Amino acid sequence: MSFDAAALANRVTRPLRAYDPGHDLPALRKRFGPVLAELGSNETVLGPSPQAIAAIESALPEVFRYPDPQGGALKQALAERLGVERAGIALGNGSHELLMLLAQCFADEQSSVVFSQFGFAVFPIATAAAGATAICVKALAPDHPSAPYGHDLDALAAAVRVDTRLVYLANPNNPTGTWFSDAELAAFLGNVPESTLVVVDEAYQEFVDAAGAGGALGLRKHFPNLVVTRTFSKAYALAGLRIGYLLADPSVVAVLERLRESFNVNSLALAAAAAALGDTAHLERVCRWTREERAWLAAELAGRGYRVLPSQTNFLLVDLGEDAAGLQDRLFERGVIVRPMAGYGLAHTLRISLGTRAENERLLAALP
Amino acid sequence: MSFDAAALANRVTRPLRAYDPGHDLPALRKRFGPVLAELGSNETVLGPSPQAIAAIESALPEVFRYPDPQGGALKQALAERLGVERAGIALGNGSHELLMLLAQCFADEQSSVVFSQFGFAVFPIATAAAGATAICVKALAPDHPSAPYGHDLDALAAAVRVDTRLVYLANPNNPTGTWFSDAELAAFLGNVPESTLVVVDEAYQEFVDAAGAGGALGLRKHFPNLVVTRTFSKAYALAGLRIGYLLADPSVVAVLERLRESFNVNSLALAAAAAALGDTAHLERVCRWTREERAWLAAELAGRGYRVLPSQTNFLLVDLGEDAAGLQDRLFERGVIVRPMAGYGLAHTLRISLGTRAENERLLAALP
Repeated sequence: MSFDAAALANRVTRPLRAYDPGHDLPALRKRFGPVLAELGSNETVLGPSPQAIAAIESALPEVFRYPDPQGGALKQALAERLGVERAGIALGNGSHELLMLLAQCFADEQSSVVFSQFGFAVFPIATAAAGATAICVKALAPDHPSAPYGHDLDALAAAVRVDTRLVYLANPNNPTGTWFSDAELAAFLGNVPESTLVVVDEAYQEFVDAAGAGGALGLRKHFPNLVVTRTFSKAYALAGLRIGYLLADPSVVAVLERLRESFNVNSLALAAAAAALGDTAHLERVCRWTREERAWLAAELAGRGYRVLPSQTNFLLVDLGEDAAGLQDRLFERGVIVRPMAGYGLAHTLRISLGTRAENERLLAALP
Repeated sequence: MSFDAAALANRVTRPLRAYDPGHDLPALRKRFGPVLAELGSNETVLGPSPQAIAAIESALPEVFRYPDPQGGALKQALAERLGVERAGIALGNGSHELLMLLAQCFADEQSSVVFSQFGFAVFPIATAAAGATAICVKALAPDHPSAPYGHDLDALAAAVRVDTRLVYLANPNNPTGTWFSDAELAAFLGNVPESTLVVVDEAYQEFVDAAGAGGALGLRKHFPNLVVTRTFSKAYALAGLRIGYLLADPSVVAVLERLRESFNVNSLALAAAAAALGDTAHLERVCRWTREERAWLAAELAGRGYRVLPSQTNFLLVDLGEDAAGLQDRLFERGVIVRPMAGYGLAHTLRISLGTRAENERLLAALP
């Protein structure tokens, strides 16, 4: 009999499947060259702060050394900037790692994890990797006035059981672009026991301009079980470097530290993130541009008859009915890469990240 | 009652403790400035290939994009260089992540993991994180002629049980510096059932010049359960970037891919590693220098009456008897940082990484 390690995988890993990257972007870059419009990954095409690039270059002569395993300088900068205590900060190899680590530390085969239908893709993966029971709560209706396909916070709170160790929320949510207000989150937290950690992934928080949605951080002092994750991949445009952070009660961070790999964040990411955090002018420019371009592209698409869902992020979800697959193929052949949503159960939609104005115009020109 | 997340940690995480970084190197750098000699982390002070640095600089304009989740270009380069198939390669955020991932995928609370006393520190951590039973096998005797404190392969093979999913070996081993031959490894593999994966961490393999110790890769075709991990942190001097790789049967890699985080390796690491791999002249220069400096420093220390253990790595383990703590303090006060070994159960030894010649001379001058 020939060797097959699949039979040796443990019980939790056995039913899992590998991540499907969808497009092979390196191959597409070769095929299309500079006319490729990559609108599938919610990246910030304005790029990072020049100060972040300079910080990377300054750190290069020491790249042979291991990173600071505590990320002390970046934590100090985050603590000062956000007014939080340093012991309440954890750093991750992207917020992805932190979302996985939360489940690995707090969930297990005896517990459950609650998240929303059409929530961020990492939530069910983290739950499955921990062997926990996934409680996936039906999203708001497709015709909900403010948050179509969005999180139903009342239903999510009602789904929390005695054995629920984690609730994962995303605000705004990827891939729907929807959001909830600080008041709605406060009401939700009031309905969840302190023995359940409520994780709010705020990867796109910097792009929000809706009233009353300033983010979860202001609620931390009232709800010790509130955990906030953020990233330098979106508004700070450092996706390639992999760095995210988590804000929580120090006792939560202390548990995560038990399983965190000692050198999980690379030294160039630490340097770049600290510098990027200091360049508030660049951040404001990125956020202002994102909001304006989002409004412009949404209006252009709506003007062509497309149903564009409300978004507080750097992407738009477009509801296309049965035409989604055909449109995606058409765009693909013209070198415009958008993200198909079949994996999310939203096969009738496409997710379009904001590109440069030239790329967005290429998208519009490629529409039928 | 005040909130304490420690009570919410799952059963596996509850008994674990956070990594102790030992020295706060950023603080020591401030205190000592340029006279600090960092000889505690087994870094390669010659630094990486200039081609790796150039590749990082070339990749900077695209750092706002996510990395290639498949690491395709680097895998292709590794496959060609090592004569392995691409499907048998996994990339990690350092080999640390790959060692953890192996246990997370293959071990669990119903299985056991075998490793040696004084083996690499990540082995017991990975075992504990998976909730598996650790079988720690007594090392060779302190006065063993060729491998004091080294792996006892016969005892390790004998310790493998029906429920043993993994054996972790390190060759050469950190922190002992000891190694075993390819013939010894082949005999070991012949004594272990195919249902147990044998992981050989070869982080220091490039530094080996002992006869008959060319590395495990040549045995892969005979033993499908053999897994080899390597890193770009040591001979390639890219520790700050966090990148390692694993070579195994494609079915092993396929299981790891189920739990690997999609963007676990950053884009600058991917670019730098591929470039570093191509600069064989730089690699040879680093390895030649390492072997020569290792021999020189070992002779200098032996000449002063110290017992230096045989090493095939870029560090030396020095057996000091009861004087170890006192000597460490003395060196520390003079800005020479070496790694204390109490955490490894080798409190009577110090581990000294090779520094520049100037740093190594500062070490010698600081001795009593």
